[in-house]
Amino acid sequence: MARFFKKRVEAKGLAPGSLVFIGNQKIEKSSMKIIHYDKEHLEEIDIASVEEIPALKGAKSVSWLNIYGIHDTELINRIGEIYDLHPLVLEDILNTGQRPKTDEFDNCQFIAMKMLQYDEEEQRVSAEQLSLVLGKDFLITFQERPGDVFEPVRDRIRKQKGRIRLSGNDYLAYALMDTVVDNYIYLVERIGEQIEDLEEQILENPQSETLQQINVFKREISFLGKVIRPVREMILRLTRSESGLFHKETMPFVADLLDLATHTIETIDTYREILSDYLNIYHTSMSNRMNEVMKILTIFAAIFIPLTFIAGIYGTNFEYIPELGFRYSYFIMWGVIVIVTIIMLRYFRRKKWF
Amino acid sequence: MARFFKKRVEAKGLAPGSLVFIGNQKIEKSSMKIIHYDKEHLEEIDIASVEEIPALKGAKSVSWLNIYGIHDTELINRIGEIYDLHPLVLEDILNTGQRPKTDEFDNCQFIAMKMLQYDEEEQRVSAEQLSLVLGKDFLITFQERPGDVFEPVRDRIRKQKGRIRLSGNDYLAYALMDTVVDNYIYLVERIGEQIEDLEEQILENPQSETLQQINVFKREISFLGKVIRPVREMILRLTRSESGLFHKETMPFVADLLDLATHTIETIDTYREILSDYLNIYHTSMSNRMNEVMKILTIFAAIFIPLTFIAGIYGTNFEYIPELGFRYSYFIMWGVIVIVTIIMLRYFRRKKWF
Amino acid sequence: MARFFKKRVEAKGLAPGSLVFIGNQKIEKSSMKIIHYDKEHLEEIDIASVEEIPALKGAKSVSWLNIYGIHDTELINRIGEIYDLHPLVLEDILNTGQRPKTDEFDNCQFIAMKMLQYDEEEQRVSAEQLSLVLGKDFLITFQERPGDVFEPVRDRIRKQKGRIRLSGNDYLAYALMDTVVDNYIYLVERIGEQIEDLEEQILENPQSETLQQINVFKREISFLGKVIRPVREMILRLTRSESGLFHKETMPFVADLLDLATHTIETIDTYREILSDYLNIYHTSMSNRMNEVMKILTIFAAIFIPLTFIAGIYGTNFEYIPELGFRYSYFIMWGVIVIVTIIMLRYFRRKKWF
Amino acid sequence: MARFFKKRVEAKGLAPGSLVFIGNQKIEKSSMKIIHYDKEHLEEIDIASVEEIPALKGAKSVSWLNIYGIHDTELINRIGEIYDLHPLVLEDILNTGQRPKTDEFDNCQFIAMKMLQYDEEEQRVSAEQLSLVLGKDFLITFQERPGDVFEPVRDRIRKQKGRIRLSGNDYLAYALMDTVVDNYIYLVERIGEQIEDLEEQILENPQSETLQQINVFKREISFLGKVIRPVREMILRLTRSESGLFHKETMPFVADLLDLATHTIETIDTYREILSDYLNIYHTSMSNRMNEVMKILTIFAAIFIPLTFIAGIYGTNFEYIPELGFRYSYFIMWGVIVIVTIIMLRYFRRKKWF
Amino acid sequence: MARFFKKRVEAKGLAPGSLVFIGNQKIEKSSMKIIHYDKEHLEEIDIASVEEIPALKGAKSVSWLNIYGIHDTELINRIGEIYDLHPLVLEDILNTGQRPKTDEFDNCQFIAMKMLQYDEEEQRVSAEQLSLVLGKDFLITFQERPGDVFEPVRDRIRKQKGRIRLSGNDYLAYALMDTVVDNYIYLVERIGEQIEDLEEQILENPQSETLQQINVFKREISFLGKVIRPVREMILRLTRSESGLFHKETMPFVADLLDLATHTIETIDTYREILSDYLNIYHTSMSNRMNEVMKILTIFAAIFIPLTFIAGIYGTNFEYIPELGFRYSYFIMWGVIVIVTIIMLRYFRRKKWF
Repeated sequence: MARFFKKRVEAKGLAPGSLVFIGNQKIEKSSMKIIHYDKEHLEEIDIASVEEIPALKGAKSVSWLNIYGIHDTELINRIGEIYDLHPLVLEDILNTGQRPKTDEFDNCQFIAMKMLQYDEEEQRVSAEQLSLVLGKDFLITFQERPGDVFEPVRDRIRKQKGRIRLSGNDYLAYALMDTVVDNYIYLVERIGEQIEDLEEQILENPQSETLQQINVFKREISFLGKVIRPVREMILRLTRSESGLFHKETMPFVADLLDLATHTIETIDTYREILSDYLNIYHTSMSNRMNEVMKILTIFAAIFIPLTFIAGIYGTNFEYIPELGFRYSYFIMWGVIVIVTIIMLRYFRRKKWF
Repeated sequence: MARFFKKRVEAKGLAPGSLVFIGNQKIEKSSMKIIHYDKEHLEEIDIASVEEIPALKGAKSVSWLNIYGIHDTELINRIGEIYDLHPLVLEDILNTGQRPKTDEFDNCQFIAMKMLQYDEEEQRVSAEQLSLVLGKDFLITFQERPGDVFEPVRDRIRKQKGRIRLSGNDYLAYALMDTVVDNYIYLVERIGEQIEDLEEQILENPQSETLQQINVFKREISFLGKVIRPVREMILRLTRSESGLFHKETMPFVADLLDLATHTIETIDTYREILSDYLNIYHTSMSNRMNEVMKILTIFAAIFIPLTFIAGIYGTNFEYIPELGFRYSYFIMWGVIVIVTIIMLRYFRRKKWF
Repeated sequence: MARFFKKRVEAKGLAPGSLVFIGNQKIEKSSMKIIHYDKEHLEEIDIASVEEIPALKGAKSVSWLNIYGIHDTELINRIGEIYDLHPLVLEDILNTGQRPKTDEFDNCQFIAMKMLQYDEEEQRVSAEQLSLVLGKDFLITFQERPGDVFEPVRDRIRKQKGRIRLSGNDYLAYALMDTVVDNYIYLVERIGEQIEDLEEQILENPQSETLQQINVFKREISFLGKVIRPVREMILRLTRSESGLFHKETMPFVADLLDLATHTIETIDTYREILSDYLNIYHTSMSNRMNEVMKILTIFAAIFIPLTFIAGIYGTNFEYIPELGFRYSYFIMWGVIVIVTIIMLRYFRRKKWF
Repeated sequence: MARFFKKRVEAKGLAPGSLVFIGNQKIEKSSMKIIHYDKEHLEEIDIASVEEIPALKGAKSVSWLNIYGIHDTELINRIGEIYDLHPLVLEDILNTGQRPKTDEFDNCQFIAMKMLQYDEEEQRVSAEQLSLVLGKDFLITFQERPGDVFEPVRDRIRKQKGRIRLSGNDYLAYALMDTVVDNYIYLVERIGEQIEDLEEQILENPQSETLQQINVFKREISFLGKVIRPVREMILRLTRSESGLFHKETMPFVADLLDLATHTIETIDTYREILSDYLNIYHTSMSNRMNEVMKILTIFAAIFIPLTFIAGIYGTNFEYIPELGFRYSYFIMWGVIVIVTIIMLRYFRRKKWF
Repeated sequence: MARFFKKRVEAKGLAPGSLVFIGNQKIEKSSMKIIHYDKEHLEEIDIASVEEIPALKGAKSVSWLNIYGIHDTELINRIGEIYDLHPLVLEDILNTGQRPKTDEFDNCQFIAMKMLQYDEEEQRVSAEQLSLVLGKDFLITFQERPGDVFEPVRDRIRKQKGRIRLSGNDYLAYALMDTVVDNYIYLVERIGEQIEDLEEQILENPQSETLQQINVFKREISFLGKVIRPVREMILRLTRSESGLFHKETMPFVADLLDLATHTIETIDTYREILSDYLNIYHTSMSNRMNEVMKILTIFAAIFIPLTFIAGIYGTNFEYIPELGFRYSYFIMWGVIVIVTIIMLRYFRRKKWF
């Protein structure tokens, strides 16, 4: 996950505030889509170039401009001019390694988040930078590539489900953030299930691969924590924001989102603890095995070494060993051997070694 | 316990604020019960359908509406309309995975808790979502299924015990929360007794099952902590609430409840520490045993391997070994063997190995 | 220590605020003693029943009512009526498992503490609940049984030592709390000495009992911490109290008490750390011993197993083994054995194994 | 890193506030450079001695005086007089072991930081003390030796890149701090890459040198944390500064710098955790190996010791051992040996020992 | 270090506020010295008895009364009367186990610290209680015995070095505290050097004494932390003091002292971490050694036990063993032995065991 961080460095030495795209370009050409709506009307417009962006300021209806692809500094710069955005906002939009945060500016609230999605095909989590700029009359969202995360929200707008068509752009911003957080929860749940499924294996037959699995999960859970924890912080700051961009009616929803993020982080912490417990159990089971191995060795050694000694005694070639001449000596030796063995076995049995 | 969390995800993609039941439906049909009381009068009414709910607002007496079963979104929605509840309240009521919390709204205080009960028959803890909505003239409680947790409170109302009939609906809300917290304490005590009973076993004869037992207790104690910690937070917020729904006379009782919750959490932390100590003792005892095993092996090996070597020497077939011909060689060998053995035993005795 | 906690549960289901004694009754019959004093006068009265309590309110002198034995709910209730105490105060007084705390009420300050005393005869610490109720004109103290902890304070009153006769009931309350905290320090010192005395044993010859000892001390130190930490919190709250019951002149003394409690807790933390270090040293010494055992085993095995092999070779019965016929073969074998042994010993010596 | 600290002690016993250089002198002679600029003009002057410093106070353009080499107390003292700096500022400038901090004085803001640079030639990080003094009309920076860290900033000034020529000396101070923090990030990234590259080695074939490597990285990461953490604190204090020296327009940039520092520290913490995980994996792999060693030993011992015993039995010289005379005894013995071996191998195979 | 604490207990049962010396008396007779100075004048007076203390109150110059030896309660009491000090101040002065703290009283600021000095002769740290009482017109310092810690300050006064003669008694108090903190730093540096010197030994050849050394350093570092941490707290409180006894001009110096104390504590924490790392390295090296020992044992056992078995086979006395009669059997056996040995050695070599 540390790789996120690096890109920023490529811009080292540049003027702070200069517009540079930091990240991997994920699509070839940026595209845009505007959705205007109010209680009664709904209009969706696909926009090819910046020039086509209509003058939205002052409109009464909700205006949602969504940009896919943020590598085009020219485009971002132009949008910045149209909406009169602070240079730092533009810089942050272009930085895909931006830490989740929210900043208040005179004319807008800037929100940066990470969208996490589990890519079923590639079997891995893909992370994408999402920036929201909430102004008095507009909401602009910046994604790295076209994706269908927000499609359910668009559906709700289209089908007039819920309160979305009755509310302003602040509610829309909330709805989008809620969708992102829901995706976090889905991921946490997914990995959580896998972690819980590991328990049986840990308890019954931990292997060296089990340990690697635990370490992989630990890394993943830690990564999720690092992404979601600042999001919680950010939402907390939104609930305390006094910019007025989030209306009083929307505030309870933001507070609810905060609860959700808190709950998610607590769940992450729970899984972290479970993984720690797993590690402990693994280590103990290792010691237990070592104990077993040592016991087996000791039982064999303690029984057969003395017996071999006895046999050794009568293998000596001394000229005068009285026992050698007795007729039943050999059988007596066997008797002694059997008795010694029984005594040893009893001893170890009493020690509960087997 | 992570399972609690998942259900929310089933609602992923839905409009935030839309009413969906999240959880396992525990009874077939919801039922309701209203208790009206003041100092002199008491009335209990079982209600079959929403339409029968009488217009309670403005009544001087205390009105307590209790709903069993929260899977019926229609019903919840209807109650929301009657009592003019915020959509988020309704949403939270329907979410059995809701984290304990309290929210202030214009006309009511919403409180969410988890009721924990030890089911003696099934030998396990059952968790149930409890929501309280405290308004100026009413108290509504939502449970997942009929249960007798609140029966003692009803008894006190019926028998005019304590100050309950002399106080308002805020005191009733407190009394109900107090009952829930008392159940937490009972559970903590129960598990605590079992943990303390484990001590002797740990100290004297720790087995591999003992370790598993410790891990089970750790998980359970951790679960209780996760349920009760946010409850404490919630009560703390109630003590600082300025909604005026909790009257000045009730406040000392809420503060007392806070002390109780704090005490419970401290006890949980104590048990957590005890379990950690147990784990340490267990590990040390494992090392001790390993040490024992190694000592036994070493004693046997160190005594018999040299002896076997001596016997081996005189088992060689060299043509000229002067000792072989001496008459008492064999007995001298035995003497040497006995002396070596005594020296070794003394050596190990001095090292306190046995 | 967890046992403290349980008693509360026996009251489960009762109305909160109802008066129930929670704890073990320690004496048969409650008794009372009143001390009136001011700069010039001193009066001590033993009181047999509640009826004899004189009307003290409004008196100019300091009135200290001490009750031994708190199991008599009737008595406590009666005192509550006489002094107009809040029901919660009475409930807390009756609860011997009450966590140290202070609560401000309109007409009094309630303070709950634990008195710890080392019972030299029974060789164990006895804990007793102490409640102080400081009103404008009175100080009431509730102990579980007659004891001489406060005797030095009474002596000071009788002998006019220090400033006690010149000060009000708030100074008396402080003096009593100071006595209790002094007892904590005495206990911490006692156990601390024993812990420090353990060091030599740990460093030189740690036994399995040493480990148990460490664990016992850990539990005791942890218990002291749990008792004293909330007392510190409570005193901190007293220093910030604005009830005016503690006068400005007494405040520096309370602040001094806070320093003392802080110091005590720091000392406890120090001992906790020392015990942790002990545990570490113990574990390391265990590993060291295992290392020693293994080294001895390895030295014996590595020297004698090859030698036995050599002897074994010449114990074979092959018809043609040229060496067997040489006259000095046997002595040469011995020579080889001696050389091998010397080489091995040097090798292990160079490895610093012995 | 502790060495930083020591130098201060050399000044022990001196009057606090007396000017002493604390550190290693890194260049022979101090040199100075002044850059004056505003939107339209730019002037760079190299200054040989203090006398040449022009009277800058009151100038409208930005005046940046940079001093290389801070061992010349005379020079520093003189500059202090010219710009009317507080004696403590001068003392802090001369102390190369100064902890990163910012202090507000009546006429200036003092900022102390550490510049870290990776010296590719010497293969190690070099640390240098940087002091900034931001006054109303001037910015003075003190470095230990000439270096090119600030060259990109000078380039931007010269080439009119970004907003630097349009902004005041506060923006210049920000730009310099930003450059320093960018260098931190570069270092963290560098070491982070090396840490991540270590993972494969840890997982596949951890050696004793791997452990030393981990410990080296731990020390380095810990050092970076100790340098950067107080820088973050310092920037936080700047964002809250009310001196007015940082203008309202520059504030968002400082806040952005704070985000960057926070991000850096979080990354450091991540690497710290990764290193901890590495250590855990290393220890577990050590245990695993021990287990392997023990298993091999046990397999050999458990198979061959009983076999040797069997052979030993028939090596005895008893006169009457019936088996010895049977024609196929020898082959039967071999059969028994093979069977025992197969049984043992199966037993260990079933235990998954090989 | 816990011993510090105990002394207080000797005063158990005494009236709080009564004057008792707590500690070991370090000199026979107390002595006193007064230094009066202002910008122009300087007067040093040695005082034999309390009666000789001149009336200093109201004087314009700085008056510094230094008392060596604090066991004389009579003297302390008398000084308390002369300067009108609060009884708690006197009590704290007499308690050599007093925790570092500062208390504000109406007419003075009380400061308690520990002076630590490394006694080169006795090779150990000696701790001494230092109390400062800063009034409007005076500064009184109480030391346990005559020592030269403050001599450099006196020298500066005498030689008019620095700003000390130009400043008031608050600056003098600061200068004395600065000297004490400088001594802390010197001690931390000293022990830090020893800790760093230990590193090589730890990495190359850790012995059991090394472990004891680490534990000694841990204890010492922990002790320093416990002494210096409350000093930092105390200085922090001084920077926030509103008594006005510390003038505005002195405040930056106190803030500087705070930085120094913070830096010292951070250094202590660094050394604590280094010691933890040492412990880890030590433990790992122990495991490594055990691994080595086990490998040697296993190599010897795995090679020679099978060989001994082969020899044992041909040592049996079966009448019909075909191999025995073959002429080259013996040499073939040797061949087999050599081959087996080579195979085993290769096997262990491939496993990198030697």
